[in-house]
Amino acid sequence: MTDARSSQERLLATLSARLGARHVRTDPAEIAPHLVETRGLYRGHALAVVAPGTTEEVAFAVRACAEARVPMVAQGGNTGLVGGGVPFGGIVLSLNRLDRLRAVDPLGASLTVEAGMILADVQAAAEAAGMLFPLSWAAEGTARIGGGLATNAGGLAVLAYGNARDLVLGLEVVLADGRIWNGLKALRKNNAGYDLKHLFVGSEGTLGIITAATLKLYPKPLSACVGFVGLPSARAALALFERLRAGADRGLTAFEYIPRFGLEMVLAHGIDVRPPLARAHAAYALIELASPRAGTETRAEMEALLAEAMEAGLVEDAVIGGSAAQDAALWRLRELLPEVQKAEGGSIKHDVSLPLSRLADFLEEASAACEAAMPGLRPCPFGHFGDGNIHFNLTQPVGMDRAEFLSQWSRFNAIVHGIVERMDGSIAAEHGIGLIKRDELARTADPVGLDLMRRLKRALDPDDLLNPGKVVALSDDPPPALPL
Amino acid sequence: MTDARSSQERLLATLSARLGARHVRTDPAEIAPHLVETRGLYRGHALAVVAPGTTEEVAFAVRACAEARVPMVAQGGNTGLVGGGVPFGGIVLSLNRLDRLRAVDPLGASLTVEAGMILADVQAAAEAAGMLFPLSWAAEGTARIGGGLATNAGGLAVLAYGNARDLVLGLEVVLADGRIWNGLKALRKNNAGYDLKHLFVGSEGTLGIITAATLKLYPKPLSACVGFVGLPSARAALALFERLRAGADRGLTAFEYIPRFGLEMVLAHGIDVRPPLARAHAAYALIELASPRAGTETRAEMEALLAEAMEAGLVEDAVIGGSAAQDAALWRLRELLPEVQKAEGGSIKHDVSLPLSRLADFLEEASAACEAAMPGLRPCPFGHFGDGNIHFNLTQPVGMDRAEFLSQWSRFNAIVHGIVERMDGSIAAEHGIGLIKRDELARTADPVGLDLMRRLKRALDPDDLLNPGKVVALSDDPPPALPL
Repeated sequence: MTDARSSQERLLATLSARLGARHVRTDPAEIAPHLVETRGLYRGHALAVVAPGTTEEVAFAVRACAEARVPMVAQGGNTGLVGGGVPFGGIVLSLNRLDRLRAVDPLGASLTVEAGMILADVQAAAEAAGMLFPLSWAAEGTARIGGGLATNAGGLAVLAYGNARDLVLGLEVVLADGRIWNGLKALRKNNAGYDLKHLFVGSEGTLGIITAATLKLYPKPLSACVGFVGLPSARAALALFERLRAGADRGLTAFEYIPRFGLEMVLAHGIDVRPPLARAHAAYALIELASPRAGTETRAEMEALLAEAMEAGLVEDAVIGGSAAQDAALWRLRELLPEVQKAEGGSIKHDVSLPLSRLADFLEEASAACEAAMPGLRPCPFGHFGDGNIHFNLTQPVGMDRAEFLSQWSRFNAIVHGIVERMDGSIAAEHGIGLIKRDELARTADPVGLDLMRRLKRALDPDDLLNPGKVVALSDDPPPALPL
Repeated sequence: MTDARSSQERLLATLSARLGARHVRTDPAEIAPHLVETRGLYRGHALAVVAPGTTEEVAFAVRACAEARVPMVAQGGNTGLVGGGVPFGGIVLSLNRLDRLRAVDPLGASLTVEAGMILADVQAAAEAAGMLFPLSWAAEGTARIGGGLATNAGGLAVLAYGNARDLVLGLEVVLADGRIWNGLKALRKNNAGYDLKHLFVGSEGTLGIITAATLKLYPKPLSACVGFVGLPSARAALALFERLRAGADRGLTAFEYIPRFGLEMVLAHGIDVRPPLARAHAAYALIELASPRAGTETRAEMEALLAEAMEAGLVEDAVIGGSAAQDAALWRLRELLPEVQKAEGGSIKHDVSLPLSRLADFLEEASAACEAAMPGLRPCPFGHFGDGNIHFNLTQPVGMDRAEFLSQWSRFNAIVHGIVERMDGSIAAEHGIGLIKRDELARTADPVGLDLMRRLKRALDPDDLLNPGKVVALSDDPPPALPL
């Protein structure tokens, strides 16, 4: 047995003694799901999956790993899309047993949850207290709140309520040396020194391990209305968005964009869907208005705003949901999009954001550039238009070999991200950097900013043990190649 | 001439050569206003006040000072209340010449301004673009936006729009070594690496010098309504706030608290004021509702909400402004508070925040404790109740010697802050730490959090040259005594 091997065995024995042997898993079959990424883009390896049950146990495990110089990758629901949770050696620290609701304070409009609580359970706890926790995205039934905070997740409610970051009042974090920072304040204003919570939110587990959070709640909207509109162009979508924002401000809770090809895919491959409008349009938007007041106010407002927009030639046709069931059916047309793309073959994906004023320019220019680069390619840019965030996905030409198409991933990244950068956008809007965009971040970020990131990493994790190689690399090791 | 002296002379000559001699001021009369703090609590000293005209000139000045190991204090309108902008040696870097509006993007709902732009001018630039920049506080006619961001200022619009931090999309910052970080993105979502802007916002010029910012704009409310209500107690204020928040969500744009003694002072010493209600009440709240829609909707909503609250016994009497002039007159009753306190003698002040659910407990307990500690003392806790932020000010007993009263500052700090800490509040809600609360922060902060702050300071400003001794001290030098 080599020294390294025996040191690792000792570490696992130490962890088993404290956490219980069944929470230190090494059986290959049992740990396999923790070694891969949702889309199968990466497959990693680990000594063990360790599942502490309390913050103190997380601290113990981190301290033990730090002493043994064994790297750690914190993991929640493992629903990330950028390879950020895939381990390449060391241990996986699964936070899924830390799933307790620690406190609910409806009057203070906050709740405190542990990192491993499933997002949908956090929403349900808020609902049970008569309030709203707005963070929401497709994987909310399996994603854990800790991962959502560690990646500053976006999702469907950013337009009115902000990103995950904006919903955090306080954090509890285990640092790289195993100390616990207790920053679980439930305050709306707190200028008592540097704001440490923002350092950890969005750091993808590379600066510290979030073990609990105090989150903002909002009053529950008592009425909502969904509209689905057909538009002549992306430019009309932008003009419509500007009008709705002026007319409803944060009463406008969603403005999601769907291109003609996107709706065609949904109607062709989705189950239980029917065409929302009589004929096809160049683009569509799903719009939601919400109000803290019960009644028909949002519906009347939707009707008035859309009537004005039709008169102005921005909207060609529109349907307004008349019930919760109809609203849900319209939402489904948007929510099915990521899934139905699979039926049309391979997709090369981009998660980009632009200044709102450049959105229409970007959609026109990037679509044209990609179509010119590969005739028959079918762009399907969709998503959180109102946040300036487009999932600029490219579906393969009909009949092309899937693997051959996906081998062009980097080439199309370069085309799309080049336009994004020229327009002062971001190549990582809501999914993060992880492994998949790490080297592109290093190439494209402001060099002073990049140096600051590395300095922060060194200051907080000098031995590079927390999710090493993700977001910013301190070593020169190249990332694992994408096994497309 | 000593070596140190000649090195300083060389530095000033270098700065004069690049910035122009008239922007390197050493005349004692000219620099005197930069050496003191608004309330006269501190008087510092400096070699010179240096006023660069561009970001590049700021970078040049910082690099020159860094090479000469001369500390720098960045200063804008010098309206801070915690001694954070007072220099004790080194140079003052006045950013007031960096006052350009760099870009306005109404469709993108953002503008980019330089740090030295006066807050009221930023508001006006937004207004000219048909939008709202919500940050607002009493000193907005002289305060500069850079200082507002560096201190994460709060003010009058936090309830609906957040603190200064929440209004920042991007920053340009000169680092301690004179390099420029260009983080001026106008994006609503950006997860491209660690969020560096939040590191600098609220760091009070100790981690970097903010030279420009891209800020969020909002649709301008087209109608608003102000109500002024008489309440039986602080507890009723809290119950009323909970109802209004549920009923109006972020349409509730202000909920300010005024105690009976506060309104009495305003009516006794304010010019052009008259009693808003027929008789006196234990407490008052100023309430504002706003809407993106024109018309009388907010007034009808205010009437309905207050009628319900009266029926529930939470509100004893109420008046609703019927015009912009009447609304302004009601706001004046709140805005005059800091000023009229001076007419009643010395005030010992606290800028604290509490979890919303503890606000009434805090007001009752802290008032009782202070009154017990000094018979005749007159508590005047007022302010941003809806944000959980109370300016817990204590007016001296009638007839007591002002200086004798103020000599009790630390004693009352200990009483008030002790209750704040027990209730998981913050001793620095919106004014920051500066010098005045530095040692109290060091005593009361979570020790791991404090260590993190020091590590950040060392990582970003290893020679301790940026506003040294403020917020967190790296050296053991005690802060200058308060010259009360």
